[in-house]
Amino acid sequence: MTKKWYGGIEAGGTKFVCAVGSGPDDILYEERFPTTTPEETIGRTLEFFRNVDVPLEGIGIASFGPIDVNPASDTFGYILKTPKLQWIDADFGQAIQRELGLPVAIDTDVNGAALGEWKWGAAQGLDTFLYFTIGTGIGGGGMVRGNLMHGLLHPEMGHMRLPHDRQRDPFEGACPFHGDCFEGLASGPAMEARWGVPAETLPTNHPAWELEADYIALAMVNAICTISPQRIILGGGVMSNLALFPLIQQKVKHYLNGYLQLPTIIDDMDGYIVPPGLGNQSGVLGAIALTQVAA
Amino acid sequence: MTKKWYGGIEAGGTKFVCAVGSGPDDILYEERFPTTTPEETIGRTLEFFRNVDVPLEGIGIASFGPIDVNPASDTFGYILKTPKLQWIDADFGQAIQRELGLPVAIDTDVNGAALGEWKWGAAQGLDTFLYFTIGTGIGGGGMVRGNLMHGLLHPEMGHMRLPHDRQRDPFEGACPFHGDCFEGLASGPAMEARWGVPAETLPTNHPAWELEADYIALAMVNAICTISPQRIILGGGVMSNLALFPLIQQKVKHYLNGYLQLPTIIDDMDGYIVPPGLGNQSGVLGAIALTQVAA
Repeated sequence: MTKKWYGGIEAGGTKFVCAVGSGPDDILYEERFPTTTPEETIGRTLEFFRNVDVPLEGIGIASFGPIDVNPASDTFGYILKTPKLQWIDADFGQAIQRELGLPVAIDTDVNGAALGEWKWGAAQGLDTFLYFTIGTGIGGGGMVRGNLMHGLLHPEMGHMRLPHDRQRDPFEGACPFHGDCFEGLASGPAMEARWGVPAETLPTNHPAWELEADYIALAMVNAICTISPQRIILGGGVMSNLALFPLIQQKVKHYLNGYLQLPTIIDDMDGYIVPPGLGNQSGVLGAIALTQVAA
Repeated sequence: MTKKWYGGIEAGGTKFVCAVGSGPDDILYEERFPTTTPEETIGRTLEFFRNVDVPLEGIGIASFGPIDVNPASDTFGYILKTPKLQWIDADFGQAIQRELGLPVAIDTDVNGAALGEWKWGAAQGLDTFLYFTIGTGIGGGGMVRGNLMHGLLHPEMGHMRLPHDRQRDPFEGACPFHGDCFEGLASGPAMEARWGVPAETLPTNHPAWELEADYIALAMVNAICTISPQRIILGGGVMSNLALFPLIQQKVKHYLNGYLQLPTIIDDMDGYIVPPGLGNQSGVLGAIALTQVAA
């Protein structure tokens, strides 16, 4: 049987990752470059795939959102109104499809990463779970009873509203649409705006992390109350500080306060809120998985 | 073809509704009585069904939660840790099954109501939508891509955390587990504790309703960001004040602030956040639908 090759594009707020492969142990080519303007970034993406010397079955795109994920729509694959202002109304998916002449499967970055984690990572065997990215932006997606979450559009979990104690944290929030929504309070840029230095330069004992864990824990409580996931996977640049995990786990238990007396939550919080099994490859492998599912 | 009859139990925080029928136009018997102790309330329920003179195919239970909805569990049908302290660990579903000798299908009150609305009411033709009850307690459930929402347990949307401006609203919240969660701020008892009189006696121009609409709108924004529902149905005692609907609709648009530029949200908010199509019958008809689906 001839091996089949698939293209994957993880379109993130900070960087694009393009790859050709068929799974975690079969990545033929991979390239990472910064997300700049739509023209330049999509241009580099096309260049990457034009240089590939194996035939591809299709291209999977796991993109930041909001993005039109309805294949029946005229604007399928277009970026919608987003805090990344240059990308509003950018034709992303159709441009890739047209220029490369290949079938394109599109979902959000987080639904893509969720699919990758379900196929090869930390969500294997589950049917209801969430994947969040906490980085340049914040997004959440996942599966409910075996289906990737879609609806009117797709989840935009980064924009939920959270308790914000302005006495403790007078920062107004960094989201251009909502100010102090989850993303506005807890994204990487929000941390940088609040503390004046990039998050990754803050020492591990800086109070920034305690506050960050607090907002993430409140958002996880809301996600747990809304979806009842069997597991939550937290990826993205901010979560590369793994010291956040025990803080978040402990605060989620604190905020649930004995409600939902389930063994998973009481005794196995370590295994309940976890880093991606695929490390920083969930997104691009998820993109590949999207086109494998579609093919 | 002989008509088939089903039993339905809507187990709410304030009252139980028991019925025998096959759909909205075929209710043979119905009785409503207050929710008191588990012994007394389950006793009256059994008495109702023992007096029914048609054979029943099964009993559907749409119950307040948290409740064990996993048929494989030893405590299937038991009430779990709930703010309704007398009901903690009460055997509800198994008692009904054992005493009546009939198959029992169990889900939350809101998943049941959602199923009823999907079959006969305001959610027909949709595959991703939510049903909230806002009354003695607050709960939310619904379908995601055609499946009623379950996961580790089931949604407990009443316990999500919301922004709470203590200068505007110094009320601490009424939830015994979380204080000022959604239910703690916006349930009927929370309104009564805050204003000193039952919600239904507050005049329509009382500021209570503006504040109430605000909390509900914030919770709907979180639900929209998390699930991306095609429609949201709001039922329960507090929502019988229909003047809340336009207030909530306008505030949801305000809080989304142009994010999610979808025609449904921009131009059809009237048809997006709506009262139950089945009025106050969603729950008990949903209970009947639960056993019809299971049969």
